[in-house]
Amino acid sequence: MRKFNFCAGPAALPEPVLLQAQQELLDWGGRGCSVMEVSHRSPEFTEVAETAEQDLRDLLAIPDNYKVLFLHGGATAQFSAVPWNLFGGPGRVADYIYTGQWAKKAIAEARRYGPVNVVASSEDRNFSYAPGPDSWQQSEDAAYFHYTPNETIGGVEFDYVPEVSCPLVADMSSNILSRPIPVEKFGMIYAGAQKNIGPSGIAVGIVRDDLLDRALDGIPRSLNWRVAADAGSMDNTPPTFAWYLSGLVFKWLKARGGVSAMELESRRKSAMLYDFIDGSDFYSSPVEPGSRSRMNVPFVLADDSLDGAFLEQSEAAGLLNLKGHRSVGGMRASLYNAVPMEAVEALVAFMADFEKRMG
Amino acid sequence: MRKFNFCAGPAALPEPVLLQAQQELLDWGGRGCSVMEVSHRSPEFTEVAETAEQDLRDLLAIPDNYKVLFLHGGATAQFSAVPWNLFGGPGRVADYIYTGQWAKKAIAEARRYGPVNVVASSEDRNFSYAPGPDSWQQSEDAAYFHYTPNETIGGVEFDYVPEVSCPLVADMSSNILSRPIPVEKFGMIYAGAQKNIGPSGIAVGIVRDDLLDRALDGIPRSLNWRVAADAGSMDNTPPTFAWYLSGLVFKWLKARGGVSAMELESRRKSAMLYDFIDGSDFYSSPVEPGSRSRMNVPFVLADDSLDGAFLEQSEAAGLLNLKGHRSVGGMRASLYNAVPMEAVEALVAFMADFEKRMG
Repeated sequence: MRKFNFCAGPAALPEPVLLQAQQELLDWGGRGCSVMEVSHRSPEFTEVAETAEQDLRDLLAIPDNYKVLFLHGGATAQFSAVPWNLFGGPGRVADYIYTGQWAKKAIAEARRYGPVNVVASSEDRNFSYAPGPDSWQQSEDAAYFHYTPNETIGGVEFDYVPEVSCPLVADMSSNILSRPIPVEKFGMIYAGAQKNIGPSGIAVGIVRDDLLDRALDGIPRSLNWRVAADAGSMDNTPPTFAWYLSGLVFKWLKARGGVSAMELESRRKSAMLYDFIDGSDFYSSPVEPGSRSRMNVPFVLADDSLDGAFLEQSEAAGLLNLKGHRSVGGMRASLYNAVPMEAVEALVAFMADFEKRMG
Repeated sequence: MRKFNFCAGPAALPEPVLLQAQQELLDWGGRGCSVMEVSHRSPEFTEVAETAEQDLRDLLAIPDNYKVLFLHGGATAQFSAVPWNLFGGPGRVADYIYTGQWAKKAIAEARRYGPVNVVASSEDRNFSYAPGPDSWQQSEDAAYFHYTPNETIGGVEFDYVPEVSCPLVADMSSNILSRPIPVEKFGMIYAGAQKNIGPSGIAVGIVRDDLLDRALDGIPRSLNWRVAADAGSMDNTPPTFAWYLSGLVFKWLKARGGVSAMELESRRKSAMLYDFIDGSDFYSSPVEPGSRSRMNVPFVLADDSLDGAFLEQSEAAGLLNLKGHRSVGGMRASLYNAVPMEAVEALVAFMADFEKRMG
């Protein structure tokens, strides 16, 4: 029996997607083999690949002058790929916003290839907010501007898109496909799949055409967006099963009304949980109200000696993976697209009951 | 119904492995979620990861002073990682044997980071043989020596391990786990999974401890073996489902007698096909007898105007993916571990019948 799964990633996948994959795992469309067992260059897999790309383009209204890439290595490989592809040569600086653990990793890797200007940081209040534009110290002529629209660990989300004059780069791993985005405002968007797209082991890149030819000399072939773009993301064998599953998720999203519907749903789901937390003295949110993530909801118990009991009992109640990240403590409920409203209702009901019994 | 699948990669997987994955795809071991839907750092996935590593160690008798890595990016990312990790600084040369398309790609990428000495090449006879050691022009003090024990496209396999005085590096993508190997003779072995290990999107690396600290400055974090080794291949989210499936394949191999049994079986399977080809004037092998691969068997029809009919009729007979690579032409039957003897028997029977009817 399937349980409600609040894992931060690799995260819950839509049940209909898993059912279809299960049904055709040994015999895919009557071909007598699995989708995992055919050449990535075969006509049948080419159709999977192209359909997935087109569906993603439709979902996010990606303009024609952007390439869509399906990449190896997760978002972490893109922490390297971004500076390699975008620094453009010595003498340029890259602007980064420092909002938590993922921004930190992106910054650390960029610094190995050129100077980084930290435009703003929320470290002063333990990464509990998204610093507003009035506080930003932007560079004169940055090679690019990087931010993390949603910090999975801290549960902090930007509720707007930064306005900058250089190419805007975003690690959208944990909130892509959860609302419409103005792709034309971005130079490059990347996202590891394992939260809102599909299984781990594949990442999506969306790159504006004119940014494909700025790579530093010596860029490893596997990180070069130009190479990936020219090869249709098949310079080498792609993670075919992950690509196929991502495509099934895109179809599922389209059938449910696309990213506008996901935005509404994510607001409803997260509001129900935040409202409950705010109405309680037993639970609290460490994140400032204007910056609270719709995707990842960390919360703490006033009495942290009850953490163990909370986790044990919630798991017994069929609510999985609520333990918070070790750097924040407490709990975290991730409410990605594949987590249904019923899961949040069940969680809130459990939390109320736990409070009543233990509070 | 499952058919016989001779795909060169992504290739056939063992049916029992797919059946188990199918059965537990939505509810893994009664946990109420898929193996794809849990954190890579959870105790349950940690057990998957560690068991897979131990089983691979057992299968290949990997000594304790070697690290086993599960990597993103396929073998192609390792074409970059090898020079980044092993050149060790300016003034060193790397030795490569040039035996076909995969060696060519490895050499091209290495040349971007340092001088490459092509020790030997089989280009003179269209990559139809593995050049013997008497012809090699080795460097005095190479940083490492790289070769491709099995060329998937040309169907050429080395039937011995080179004896060299520097670290020996091998791209074993298409023949790993098909026979015992003296790991202690190698500095580094790598293999994309999608032939003899599992689905595409994961690669295995086996690195001798003392080679983990020679990386060039500026190596991208995602290519750094030291980083991967220290993090247990979890510096970032690994391809968890691919890792899990690879682990199921390792269990399946152990249950079937391990790599010694696979060696015997691969010799029997490939000998049956080569013997049939050699006994026919209708078919022929483009590969010289001493260098013929047990894994990939290219063959051509004397009358190539029959290629289309051969492919159409073989597919109709339930024999999938026999088309040869465009650079060689004709046919190619890949006989990886998951391709059973019955598949080869069915192929030979079909070929005999086709010859009788069309010859």
